[in-house]
Amino acid sequence: MTQETYHKVIDRIYREVLPYHGRGKVADYIPALSEVDPRQYGIALETLDGATVAKGDASTCFSIQSISKVFTFAMVVRHLGEKIWESVGREPSGNPFNSLVQLEHEKGIPRNPFINAGALVITDRLIDIYPRPKEAILDFVRELCGNNDIYYDRRVAVSEREHADRNMALAYFMKSFGNIHNDVDTLIDVYCHQCSIAMNCIDLARSFKFLAHRGVNPIDGKRILTESQAKRLGAVMATCGFYDESGDFAFRVGLPGKSGVGGGIVAYLPGKLSIAVWSPELDSHGNSLMGIETLERFTTDISSSIF
Amino acid sequence: MTQETYHKVIDRIYREVLPYHGRGKVADYIPALSEVDPRQYGIALETLDGATVAKGDASTCFSIQSISKVFTFAMVVRHLGEKIWESVGREPSGNPFNSLVQLEHEKGIPRNPFINAGALVITDRLIDIYPRPKEAILDFVRELCGNNDIYYDRRVAVSEREHADRNMALAYFMKSFGNIHNDVDTLIDVYCHQCSIAMNCIDLARSFKFLAHRGVNPIDGKRILTESQAKRLGAVMATCGFYDESGDFAFRVGLPGKSGVGGGIVAYLPGKLSIAVWSPELDSHGNSLMGIETLERFTTDISSSIF
Amino acid sequence: MTQETYHKVIDRIYREVLPYHGRGKVADYIPALSEVDPRQYGIALETLDGATVAKGDASTCFSIQSISKVFTFAMVVRHLGEKIWESVGREPSGNPFNSLVQLEHEKGIPRNPFINAGALVITDRLIDIYPRPKEAILDFVRELCGNNDIYYDRRVAVSEREHADRNMALAYFMKSFGNIHNDVDTLIDVYCHQCSIAMNCIDLARSFKFLAHRGVNPIDGKRILTESQAKRLGAVMATCGFYDESGDFAFRVGLPGKSGVGGGIVAYLPGKLSIAVWSPELDSHGNSLMGIETLERFTTDISSSIF
Amino acid sequence: MTQETYHKVIDRIYREVLPYHGRGKVADYIPALSEVDPRQYGIALETLDGATVAKGDASTCFSIQSISKVFTFAMVVRHLGEKIWESVGREPSGNPFNSLVQLEHEKGIPRNPFINAGALVITDRLIDIYPRPKEAILDFVRELCGNNDIYYDRRVAVSEREHADRNMALAYFMKSFGNIHNDVDTLIDVYCHQCSIAMNCIDLARSFKFLAHRGVNPIDGKRILTESQAKRLGAVMATCGFYDESGDFAFRVGLPGKSGVGGGIVAYLPGKLSIAVWSPELDSHGNSLMGIETLERFTTDISSSIF
Repeated sequence: MTQETYHKVIDRIYREVLPYHGRGKVADYIPALSEVDPRQYGIALETLDGATVAKGDASTCFSIQSISKVFTFAMVVRHLGEKIWESVGREPSGNPFNSLVQLEHEKGIPRNPFINAGALVITDRLIDIYPRPKEAILDFVRELCGNNDIYYDRRVAVSEREHADRNMALAYFMKSFGNIHNDVDTLIDVYCHQCSIAMNCIDLARSFKFLAHRGVNPIDGKRILTESQAKRLGAVMATCGFYDESGDFAFRVGLPGKSGVGGGIVAYLPGKLSIAVWSPELDSHGNSLMGIETLERFTTDISSSIF
Repeated sequence: MTQETYHKVIDRIYREVLPYHGRGKVADYIPALSEVDPRQYGIALETLDGATVAKGDASTCFSIQSISKVFTFAMVVRHLGEKIWESVGREPSGNPFNSLVQLEHEKGIPRNPFINAGALVITDRLIDIYPRPKEAILDFVRELCGNNDIYYDRRVAVSEREHADRNMALAYFMKSFGNIHNDVDTLIDVYCHQCSIAMNCIDLARSFKFLAHRGVNPIDGKRILTESQAKRLGAVMATCGFYDESGDFAFRVGLPGKSGVGGGIVAYLPGKLSIAVWSPELDSHGNSLMGIETLERFTTDISSSIF
Repeated sequence: MTQETYHKVIDRIYREVLPYHGRGKVADYIPALSEVDPRQYGIALETLDGATVAKGDASTCFSIQSISKVFTFAMVVRHLGEKIWESVGREPSGNPFNSLVQLEHEKGIPRNPFINAGALVITDRLIDIYPRPKEAILDFVRELCGNNDIYYDRRVAVSEREHADRNMALAYFMKSFGNIHNDVDTLIDVYCHQCSIAMNCIDLARSFKFLAHRGVNPIDGKRILTESQAKRLGAVMATCGFYDESGDFAFRVGLPGKSGVGGGIVAYLPGKLSIAVWSPELDSHGNSLMGIETLERFTTDISSSIF
Repeated sequence: MTQETYHKVIDRIYREVLPYHGRGKVADYIPALSEVDPRQYGIALETLDGATVAKGDASTCFSIQSISKVFTFAMVVRHLGEKIWESVGREPSGNPFNSLVQLEHEKGIPRNPFINAGALVITDRLIDIYPRPKEAILDFVRELCGNNDIYYDRRVAVSEREHADRNMALAYFMKSFGNIHNDVDTLIDVYCHQCSIAMNCIDLARSFKFLAHRGVNPIDGKRILTESQAKRLGAVMATCGFYDESGDFAFRVGLPGKSGVGGGIVAYLPGKLSIAVWSPELDSHGNSLMGIETLERFTTDISSSIF
């Protein structure tokens, strides 16, 4: 498909999905997120052969939240390789209700790296590896999208930290099983920062191109992950990337991807393209309602999914 | 890739995996299955452009067990369409331990059509639709692989029926929520029969070609499912096809597929090929140990998976 | 206390609690129970030294439902003694939500004999012991209260049987673990009959006197249970007799007792008296709302509980 | 019974149970407890009419651990009355495995005040009420047993604090539901101190006499709780005082009581007596093995329990 075709497809989808404003609900678990103007909607697409599309609020920065789990996971897996699977599983977590039961049943080993418990373990390992973890995360993300202006939104980070009781509970619980190595306060500080990274759709689409490109960053040709690591990260995203809506996302969209409660979703078609959508209104599972709708129409229109 | 290349790849994998005999354990939950000779191993592959490979015990028939869930699901979904999702979910089920909790928590709606509870609901709907359900299932499978010799293994069906207490429990439990319509004894009879269907690897690879071919049976050109239904069935298989090892199968193999405790696994690469492996020895999750090993090597060797 | 004092106490409580009519809800899980006139309320008390009080609808028969679990348990424990604890636990079951999880977690061993799963195991053992179990149960109850007119309410039994899907599920589930010995249909038939026994408050108060009397039936002086068995049955009732409201009943009333969804409650003060209350309207936990209120006032007024 | 009879009974039980040394296992979850000499065994009994018995190591101090939950609960309930039940339940908690599920399911409200989560809520309220909570607890306990030498074992408190990850997790988890008001570090500090109180059997038996005496401390005649509060605290102890062995304790012993992992157990017979036993070796549920054995023989020998 040509750049022009992609433009047309995205334009049409944008018009069709725009009227969905008002059907979802902005995240309200921390004040800093709840104040975001809900009526925003952006799409950015980048193909490996050079087409790019940016539509609507594609240049507006927002809080990437759980999308950051993909970045920290990539940082840790390139250092630890397969050893990481001793500390975290790679199975979907089923019912959200069960997260703590599962942690207890499985002796502090979270089901996968994309539920909060798993992401905390990953960040804990990142602190083991990097002496200055907060700087390291920023450096990595900046390199991925070739943009040195990526920053932490300190206001969000502070708000996040003030409402971190449940993550504190998860961290102490896993620490009681020996699966958290570092001081819990330090861990939560780094974790709240990674969630607060502000990026726009264009940055995000770019930052996932190394996954579409089998592990190599197309911007500078640097290998981030081995081909096998990249494929496997894709598999984990496809089965676990959307909490207890992962099956539904595979069903409706059919791409590996990751969402955040800030309303962002990034996904990619291996060998082809990456695409980021943002709209702050969430469905009942905490995923961007218009984001999923957009991606479902996109894979239907271009007749491509991984299935 | 040419027929010859596929031959070489399969030959080499066969030699490499053959020494794994003895590492797994034949299913022992019903006598008829436990008596199978464990030292059997077959592979069959069919590509959409005409290549075929059959290796080892590819012509020996075995009990397809849970692989039958894909056939009954396809039969029901072509009649009921999206309505089926009112009676069954499409999310991975997480911990096996939780199956009954989830059923209770979600008012008798199973998590997905490939856990036993979900497959029972599907067979119940099939009984609603077809006046002679057992004949209908055989007809459907025979048509899929163009082989009228497919049959029920009555000995396995009887053995299955004698050890169906847990499935009886699941069926009555869902009936108490109104999610089973038919008489439970009838339902379990049909279900035990579908599990007892005897097929070989060549049949199985052929029977999944309509999925690789986006819903159309390449044997007779007949459309079985719409393209969208086929893609979505693939997505459900990829996230839910291997019980609580679904994430691991996606991670290691990266293809939509389905396994049975008889030791069979079928998988396919959309637009390309379908492949069936059989070896009766199971890993701790009830999936064929040599089957998964074979498929992992296969997708690595041909450098293709959906991710 | 004299007969006269008891009369006054019961009279006053009756007047005070009567206005509570309308606060609860008659059981509706089977049609035969839902048709009962809700505006009924009876109390019967019998002391070991000969005082008796009957007030309101104390002579009207109703369905004893789960109260029958105490009778079948007594019948089985006198035959099997301590061995019964290999098949059933004696710990409160906590959250009702968990009954099936616990059964799964504990390999088919129910938490205690007074949840449905446990009562099914007890009735299964009763069928092992008695060639004609339904007759045996009636004989036992008739002997306890010296009344040969105690009968099964066939209409309730039939209605019960038609709505037994969940109990069928429990029975098959435990059978899959080997903890049910008999044919499930037979078991459920006996179980539905025991629940349908029709008794009035006077009968019920009399039938529990052997527990107040340390195991000996004061009517005919026959020992039903050893003193130790009687004490221990009391302990199990006090901790497990009211489902997930057992703690609350101990807290508010402070007597060992048992309730049924027919609206009956029987309790006793060891060495002193037994008391039965009936009112069909239930609280949210399935226990008679006016029954519990009556007993709470009674133990407060006579300044006696086991605590 | 006379003082002499009690002496004989206790003497005989002591001799019979002494050979049980070696069957249990000293608590090892914190170093300070694991170092205790296991071969210790003491019994102290006090009746309301003046009999006292002290046997074996009845004057040796040990860590009371969870027995402290009864003291803090009494302190809080006399201030808050029935309002406390808005923040904590009074139902047995069933399976230990479920503690966190239940907390999640019931929105941060623990099942009862004697599981750790519930005791943390009680201590949190105590911090609301008393400006100097650690002093207040000591004062209360000293007054109960008329002994100003009761003290915190600082070494145990420090060790406890160093291994408090799981309690930290519980506290943060409940705080995320709004059911912990105070700073978690402060809360855990007070909680670790209350667990570290060192008392001997004689002190403990004396400290529970106000419960046997319907709320009034027989030492100085001061009312600690109303009669109703005392009875109700007894009911909660009888149903919830021994974690997931509460039903078994009621069954075997038949007295309201409370145990601690330091190996102490205190129980009482309302209107009659209180009794404390200590032996550091625990059964698989974390209760003193010789302690429960002692009390079971005691209630059998004196033919008295609450049932």
